[in-house]
Amino acid sequence: MNQASIDVVGIGNAIVDVIARADDAFLERERLVKGTTALIDAERAEALYCLMGPAIEASGGSIANTMAGVASLGGRGAFIGKVRDDVLGKVFCHDLTAQGVSFETPAATAGPPTARCLILVTPDGQRTMNTYLGACAELGPDDIDSDLVCAAQITYLEGYLFDPPLAQQAFRKAAAVAHAAGRKVALSLSDPFCVERHREAFRDLVTGHIDILFANEAEICSLYETGDFTAAAAAVRGLVGIAALTRSAEGSVILAGRAEHPIAAAPVARVVDATGAGDLYAAGFLYGLIRGLPLPNCGAIGSLCAAEIISHLGGRPERKLSELVAAARDAGDWLRLYC
Amino acid sequence: MNQASIDVVGIGNAIVDVIARADDAFLERERLVKGTTALIDAERAEALYCLMGPAIEASGGSIANTMAGVASLGGRGAFIGKVRDDVLGKVFCHDLTAQGVSFETPAATAGPPTARCLILVTPDGQRTMNTYLGACAELGPDDIDSDLVCAAQITYLEGYLFDPPLAQQAFRKAAAVAHAAGRKVALSLSDPFCVERHREAFRDLVTGHIDILFANEAEICSLYETGDFTAAAAAVRGLVGIAALTRSAEGSVILAGRAEHPIAAAPVARVVDATGAGDLYAAGFLYGLIRGLPLPNCGAIGSLCAAEIISHLGGRPERKLSELVAAARDAGDWLRLYC
Repeated sequence: MNQASIDVVGIGNAIVDVIARADDAFLERERLVKGTTALIDAERAEALYCLMGPAIEASGGSIANTMAGVASLGGRGAFIGKVRDDVLGKVFCHDLTAQGVSFETPAATAGPPTARCLILVTPDGQRTMNTYLGACAELGPDDIDSDLVCAAQITYLEGYLFDPPLAQQAFRKAAAVAHAAGRKVALSLSDPFCVERHREAFRDLVTGHIDILFANEAEICSLYETGDFTAAAAAVRGLVGIAALTRSAEGSVILAGRAEHPIAAAPVARVVDATGAGDLYAAGFLYGLIRGLPLPNCGAIGSLCAAEIISHLGGRPERKLSELVAAARDAGDWLRLYC
Repeated sequence: MNQASIDVVGIGNAIVDVIARADDAFLERERLVKGTTALIDAERAEALYCLMGPAIEASGGSIANTMAGVASLGGRGAFIGKVRDDVLGKVFCHDLTAQGVSFETPAATAGPPTARCLILVTPDGQRTMNTYLGACAELGPDDIDSDLVCAAQITYLEGYLFDPPLAQQAFRKAAAVAHAAGRKVALSLSDPFCVERHREAFRDLVTGHIDILFANEAEICSLYETGDFTAAAAAVRGLVGIAALTRSAEGSVILAGRAEHPIAAAPVARVVDATGAGDLYAAGFLYGLIRGLPLPNCGAIGSLCAAEIISHLGGRPERKLSELVAAARDAGDWLRLYC
């Protein structure tokens, strides 16, 4: 196996977020389930946008957010995902490459527009997402650059890719290529409803095909159809190399073989917007792994990155994460707990 | 004169902001003058965007920001400005109307795209703006709805409108219609370089044709070609009904006849982004005037609104300003000083 020339290649939906504040009554009126992601068509996207308050636009996409985080930490990353050759596609491409992430997937020149996710942020800081997949449905196996996947130490796959059928084929191709090259494959379960839609496929994958699994409490519970986190954690233990299970303010739990590492959440003054919390946790965790740090340190860096992202609107880091990590280490505060 | 059915109609450039962080070295390299606005063409906009870091998109435009603020305070407002029928035009229209501002100017169906302003925010919170006017250059006298102007207690004009020649005609028509209907006309000087470009025209206007003038220190000094704020303030005194002159952290000074009211800046924990500070000061001030409050109260509400806007990225309020004002009044803190 050759030395990996990049750290992580992320494969996911290429999405621009449209973020507005909303109250709980709005969610109820529009029958939205707080904290989850709904898939919507173009017509519903149009209607919902009209009902939403003033918004800001910011590049998003779960794994794309993670890749932005990896780059902000100093890691070498690339992204594979599909935009259309339109204004939002250009915005997505600019923001990712300006962050230092390589992004070469050709934009679609026909078909639906670049994907957008209408995000409602409630006063409690929770985000509720409504994704119009648009051009993401055009991502297919041909977009998977095998050389790129072989060159990456870790290939990180977005669970949401199971929604567009062609993308699911791209996902399977990438995983096969990575493993054939002796690389690691990481997976995010993305969303409890996404897990529900593809439960059997995810269970098959998780059973022996995934090296690093990211899931939050709702997702891992959905995968094993239980309301009990401990039971869900017990079910996944041993099936994957490492499972990093996040629990919002309660921090995370890392399972690896028989070991179990509870990780505290990093302190945050006020949760402004939970968008990207899981994505940036994954960024910190993967960055730690790449640098060969012990698992508790990986989790602690993940917590720190998640704390940055939830302290402002949007799912991309506003501050340079490498500086945050260095400052936390120098200050000798909570990072030391795990050193 | 009939009762005004709306409070303020704002006429200005319809712009979507593209906001990125940058360091001072970037400004120097690109020969940008911190805190000012440069006009750029499509080619330069493209080149500068490529050089900028990851960005967010948010509706902007000086007077449009003010109108969003007036609506957030509970005032009845309308906006006249020109977008193209493209994605950014739709974003601009959505954000303004979702805020409660009436916006009926027809979008251009041909010609240049919706205007954008590339904003670099330095670590000190200062913003440096680069505006590609695009469709704004299409705003003309025919877009001025005379009935709307007659129905508004105050017509608020953006100094930047002097840059596109047709818009300047629209500006003059609106001012004439408003005064003929016995309404008040307010003007923002917008930017010191804008004043420099149109100094004679602005001096003519300010001499007897403007009821309420907004300017910051650099702008009023540019208008009277002096480096001394006191001299500039003395020069404008008596030429306009009211002059509200802002001085960043040093607050503002309101001149009206022989009276002079110094107003403190409202406290703010950290200046994240100065974008919109003057615009939102104007929103608070105009809202106070409409409600018939004494001038020092108008200034204090302006300061409060400015403090909200500089505490986050972008020039549109994130919190409901009417609630902020109510809270400050109830808390009996600094607002009371002026009551």
